[in-house]
Amino acid sequence: MSDFILALTGGIGGAKLCLGLQRVLAPGALRIIVNTGDDFEHLGLAISPDIDTTVYTLAGLANCELGWGRKDETWTFMEVLQTLGGPAWFRLGDGDLAMHIERTRRRAAGETLTDITADLAHRLGVPSRVIPMSDDPVRTVVGTAAGELAFQEYFVRERCGPAVTALRFQGAQAANISGAAAASLHDASLQAIVIAPSNPYLSIDPALAVPGMRAALRARGAPVIAVSPIIGDSAVKGPTAKIMRELGLAPSPLTVLEHYRGLIDGIVLDERDAGLAKHIHIPARVCDTLMRSLEDRERVARAVLTLALELRC
Amino acid sequence: MSDFILALTGGIGGAKLCLGLQRVLAPGALRIIVNTGDDFEHLGLAISPDIDTTVYTLAGLANCELGWGRKDETWTFMEVLQTLGGPAWFRLGDGDLAMHIERTRRRAAGETLTDITADLAHRLGVPSRVIPMSDDPVRTVVGTAAGELAFQEYFVRERCGPAVTALRFQGAQAANISGAAAASLHDASLQAIVIAPSNPYLSIDPALAVPGMRAALRARGAPVIAVSPIIGDSAVKGPTAKIMRELGLAPSPLTVLEHYRGLIDGIVLDERDAGLAKHIHIPARVCDTLMRSLEDRERVARAVLTLALELRC
Repeated sequence: MSDFILALTGGIGGAKLCLGLQRVLAPGALRIIVNTGDDFEHLGLAISPDIDTTVYTLAGLANCELGWGRKDETWTFMEVLQTLGGPAWFRLGDGDLAMHIERTRRRAAGETLTDITADLAHRLGVPSRVIPMSDDPVRTVVGTAAGELAFQEYFVRERCGPAVTALRFQGAQAANISGAAAASLHDASLQAIVIAPSNPYLSIDPALAVPGMRAALRARGAPVIAVSPIIGDSAVKGPTAKIMRELGLAPSPLTVLEHYRGLIDGIVLDERDAGLAKHIHIPARVCDTLMRSLEDRERVARAVLTLALELRC
Repeated sequence: MSDFILALTGGIGGAKLCLGLQRVLAPGALRIIVNTGDDFEHLGLAISPDIDTTVYTLAGLANCELGWGRKDETWTFMEVLQTLGGPAWFRLGDGDLAMHIERTRRRAAGETLTDITADLAHRLGVPSRVIPMSDDPVRTVVGTAAGELAFQEYFVRERCGPAVTALRFQGAQAANISGAAAASLHDASLQAIVIAPSNPYLSIDPALAVPGMRAALRARGAPVIAVSPIIGDSAVKGPTAKIMRELGLAPSPLTVLEHYRGLIDGIVLDERDAGLAKHIHIPARVCDTLMRSLEDRERVARAVLTLALELRC
């Protein structure tokens, strides 16, 4: 096998970096382990939001205006579903629906999420390998003052409104690392591992909660590099900083660094946080980590790969 | 309860007459028992083609160009499903899909097909009551020289190509007449029963195969009137005449009459078959039974209701 980089990612923020990595690496030289803690069953369909965000982004099909779903989407299904009195809080575009229905059909026919994801990504033209962290169900449950919420209830239905008091990953203890993820982590051609700038608590921790994942990430001795999802005291997108405050944590790249202590060998910070470098005792690199354009994504990807190369030398 | 007419129907041909009846009767004075032998599970979804054709037609939502599905439909789901390698032989529009997904969701939640159908039809503005013949699974199986086919495989995938050697209605013997159908058939306000010009073998026989249905149709002594789906030696639409020939039957209104012998009290024939009247020993009425316009549908409906009135006097 040829050399490859492995990324660990969640939703849209992580997918942006993955697209940057895909664009600067040779075709096929990127593998991505994706969070499945956001997965849920809705309307009888197996929905894997982070896998789909990753696949759509890498296929050039992502809806950049919405920040989720497919571009050039139609919404007839949703309009009629509302007329019929069906649950409308989770919006599903007509094209997006094909992904969920086809995945559900194949799972019912006995295929693993890993095999289904690989095939669907391939059919949509994605040159990278997109790998679920596990083929077993892991479900992120959000504790709030008003009780526990399933992740999508918290994230979509309640729009991250309730203060988070705790997080747990139902099923994680009984889950296995997916075969493709384990094989990649133990592959001699693995050059570096990148923890994407996804929410550490909601998007990366579910994978880290699967038994053996932390050890597997270190198994080959390839450098592990995180990109901070926090710039200053804010998240670029999503509820990361809000959740950190609610959990009693200071939103800062230093808190992210502390969270990943013992797991990572290097970190990429935003240039606005260059002043923090003196507090960081592992190799760090600064760059503008805001990813608005394709060039931005490639720039952050190159910063990560440069740090990885330094750590390997 | 106020007086009502009950129709027994299958797909598009029957739905046209039902629309005519709905238009000439007072709102709510039509109830319709619909064939569910065409129902099947596809892509994990509970699909009831004849129920949906009936509901869409009565709601003014039917796609008249296609002859099935909804008007003003979009097809994004189907396009993407084909890209993903999913089964594309049964075409599902984006809006139509909402019907199947919502029905599947409610069935999984424990609702009966009867209750779901009543609610969905009501939400789409249908003033008539649309009632499945049974809440239990009955599946039409088509025997061919190459073996048995599930009904939709025969009808849609194979486009009625294979010669039919036999028909059976799997599950019918164990099925019960739906509670709403049974209650309507035993209701003192039932004025007449109309067997719509649907395919007798594919669309009406499944209902007649449910134990007790024939007796229930006669229970109140209300006149039972059939409208011939055959004009001359042809069917207006669909494979009725073809199937009759394959089963060794002469396509003729007289064969339809013979098929319904002992069940019906009167028949409506097309005016082109007026010459057959001398062979018919039950009350018959002739009219132009081709239903292209709304006026056509109303004309045939009035012919049926006039004959019913004569039979009651």
